Amino acid sequence: MIEANLDDQTGEGLGYVMEQLLTAGAFDVYFTPIQMKKNRPATKLSVLADPQARESLTKLILAETSTVGIRYQTWQRTIMRRHFIEVPTAYGPVHLKVASYDDIEKKTPEYVDCARLAQASGVPLMAVYQAALAAADQVDKED
Amino acid sequence: MIEANLDDQTGEGLGYVMEQLLTAGAFDVYFTPIQMKKNRPATKLSVLADPQARESLTKLILAETSTVGIRYQTWQRTIMRRHFIEVPTAYGPVHLKVASYDDIEKKTPEYVDCARLAQASGVPLMAVYQAALAAADQVDKED
Amino acid sequence: MIEANLDDQTGEGLGYVMEQLLTAGAFDVYFTPIQMKKNRPATKLSVLADPQARESLTKLILAETSTVGIRYQTWQRTIMRRHFIEVPTAYGPVHLKVASYDDIEKKTPEYVDCARLAQASGVPLMAVYQAALAAADQVDKED
Amino acid sequence: MIEANLDDQTGEGLGYVMEQLLTAGAFDVYFTPIQMKKNRPATKLSVLADPQARESLTKLILAETSTVGIRYQTWQRTIMRRHFIEVPTAYGPVHLKVASYDDIEKKTPEYVDCARLAQASGVPLMAVYQAALAAADQVDKED
Amino acid sequence: MIEANLDDQTGEGLGYVMEQLLTAGAFDVYFTPIQMKKNRPATKLSVLADPQARESLTKLILAETSTVGIRYQTWQRTIMRRHFIEVPTAYGPVHLKVASYDDIEKKTPEYVDCARLAQASGVPLMAVYQAALAAADQVDKED
Amino acid sequence: MIEANLDDQTGEGLGYVMEQLLTAGAFDVYFTPIQMKKNRPATKLSVLADPQARESLTKLILAETSTVGIRYQTWQRTIMRRHFIEVPTAYGPVHLKVASYDDIEKKTPEYVDCARLAQASGVPLMAVYQAALAAADQVDKED
Ligand code: NI
Ligand code: NI
Ligand code: NI
Ligand code: NI
Ligand code: NI
Ligand code: NI
Ligand code: NI
Ligand code: NI
Ligand code: NI
Ligand code: NI
Ligand code: NI
Ligand code: NI
Repeated sequence: MIEANLDDQTGEGLGYVMEQLLTAGAFDVYFTPIQMKKNRPATKLSVLADPQARESLTKLILAETSTVGIRYQTWQRTIMRRHFIEVPTAYGPVHLKVASYDDIEKKTPEYVDCARLAQASGVPLMAVYQAALAAADQVDKED
Repeated sequence: MIEANLDDQTGEGLGYVMEQLLTAGAFDVYFTPIQMKKNRPATKLSVLADPQARESLTKLILAETSTVGIRYQTWQRTIMRRHFIEVPTAYGPVHLKVASYDDIEKKTPEYVDCARLAQASGVPLMAVYQAALAAADQVDKED
Repeated sequence: MIEANLDDQTGEGLGYVMEQLLTAGAFDVYFTPIQMKKNRPATKLSVLADPQARESLTKLILAETSTVGIRYQTWQRTIMRRHFIEVPTAYGPVHLKVASYDDIEKKTPEYVDCARLAQASGVPLMAVYQAALAAADQVDKED
Repeated sequence: MIEANLDDQTGEGLGYVMEQLLTAGAFDVYFTPIQMKKNRPATKLSVLADPQARESLTKLILAETSTVGIRYQTWQRTIMRRHFIEVPTAYGPVHLKVASYDDIEKKTPEYVDCARLAQASGVPLMAVYQAALAAADQVDKED
Repeated sequence: MIEANLDDQTGEGLGYVMEQLLTAGAFDVYFTPIQMKKNRPATKLSVLADPQARESLTKLILAETSTVGIRYQTWQRTIMRRHFIEVPTAYGPVHLKVASYDDIEKKTPEYVDCARLAQASGVPLMAVYQAALAAADQVDKED
Repeated sequence: MIEANLDDQTGEGLGYVMEQLLTAGAFDVYFTPIQMKKNRPATKLSVLADPQARESLTKLILAETSTVGIRYQTWQRTIMRRHFIEVPTAYGPVHLKVASYDDIEKKTPEYVDCARLAQASGVPLMAVYQAALAAADQVDKED
């Protein structure tokens, strides 16, 4: 986890940095609203990344933002095993992410599939999502 | 909409006020984190209520919070028509809220039903929710 | 209520604007963290002010911030009547704000008095605040 | 201003709705983190739009989100007059938005130009932005 | 400290998870509003717990939420020693938490006592809280 | 990094604590809005400080806030080298912070200088800031 507090960067600049960091290989990037001294609303930038990418992402943050200091922490992680299956829906096929850990298994429709089919079919995202969950439920019954 | 900015109330006190306002008939109550002068993190209290309840809720807020002033706004509203249907799932029957407006119709499993069945069956809330959505999808196909 | 959404202003600049607006006569100024398009963390500026100050505060906001547009709303208000009393504490006298509305009356120790006495006496702010509330409680019993 | 409080929508779904609303002609869309009853972290959706687009955007929100109710408010607005000029920089030409109101005039480099040139030149966004501001400063001196 | 970022979970589901985690023995659970990629408002879940409860709480979070990954950090802690005393007030007896560390001692009225007495007596929570603080102040003088 | 979650402290009290911590030598102090159990909006206090100051700042937080527990984490840090240069502007001289790391160098106008000159000259903070950035750009060209 790489973090920096930013009180002299604009929102425009922060949106740009998020995009640059994701392009440069960060696993994930997120912002937290914080409140700094002298009545300054500010933003905490958090970057989850491979330890090997730390130096390059640090340089990107120092170059692209107004901060002069960055901090690091190593967190341990538990990650579920994942594979993908595909289910048919009235709007077209949707991939489901199947995540498992011990005896836990859960299926989540892929957002990009649902969004694409919703726009192609002119229906709400929720309709496609719901259809994909129903198909997932059907798969479970057939197991 | 009734609103007040609170910078000299504790979080404990605010949780209590939310409960009191809901008991006293407010439609909905929500908090927004705000930042006030002198580096004070604060909370904006917003209450959605029937205009006829305004005077009684105002008195409740003035009595229970540290604020000395309250502000009001009237908003226009569009509300979907709603009725409930019941669908069977492997965990027991779940009510679905069916909301409609013009040619839009959407079905949402009732949270309280799903939560109750999840705890009774020892399964995750998501499992019940997903089963209820699948059942809703089945209802749609039979229409 | 005067509002503007700011996504190309720094936190430093926003802290400066808050101070300028309060100096120029705004009743109150507060910030709300918001999230705008293109992944931009941003800040909503809200100013409570006398309607007569609207034009001058508008010009201050347009001059000092990056926004090109400002919006206005008139809210109705209920304000409690207020007067001040003074109570003795072990740390020195503290003013209490006595606010009343209908049959509601509440007493709040003045922050500035408590802060000043806490620093002068080298005790926590809470100690002075608690002593002032205890003195207020005594006043109530003598009523 | 169109608003809805959403406590049974995912972040994924909300990101999708923002995009749909902007495509459908909303002037601006923003999210505010709020806290609803039953310990639910939620999101307030706010849409700034032409009054004539109200009905179509309302239907979009009702179709795409889980809300069953939407509220409306009309705000008055002050908008600065705007035109664009172009200034040369070491990285290429950048448009500046020149906004004016009464005796206030301010120049802001266009984000899209700066972002495009930064990526083409392999320099930080700040470098282009700063060069554009320096060029704007030069324009001012020549006036 | 156990943490997970959630962008495909509803507020309803998150409220449910908080309750489940507290029931399962977490010391504390809190939510932080964050902003993830693709314009998604999201929520960071943080759980403070005994290291021995880590595996069971991890499984609960993986089962009940949409996340596929969880992260962990060990923090050092300083905890004040605590005991409880009881003070009389006009509304009934209230427990005070007396917390001490080195030469610091502070007394806080128990929220549950104050809330119960306030409702039983039909007075604001603040009235009971203030009476309890006044009683605490009296105890201090008698020491 | 020293942290504490505060749900029974007022915003007024938190503003006071920030000031006390900065006076006592903390490098930086910031607040994050969080949501705790029982519908309580709360604030996370974060303090960046020298490890040697940990004990004294801990005591300050325990004395001045309602918390009974504090947690600690050590973060690694990368800090840019910094020196200051001074540039002339139409409003007077402004210091620029020149921060460098590897081949990255960036110049930021000092906020306090800009704020002082803006008020002395009766111009917006942005005008001074922009003039200082233009002067910085000029310095770069002369290198
Ligand atoms: Ni700075
Ligand atoms: Ni496939
Ligand atoms: Ni106050
Ligand atoms: Ni029924
Ligand atoms: Ni812009
Ligand atoms: Ni006096
Ligand atoms: Ni609901
Ligand atoms: Ni052009
Ligand atoms: Ni996802
Ligand atoms: Ni007892
Ligand atoms: Ni407590
Ligand atoms: Ni100098």
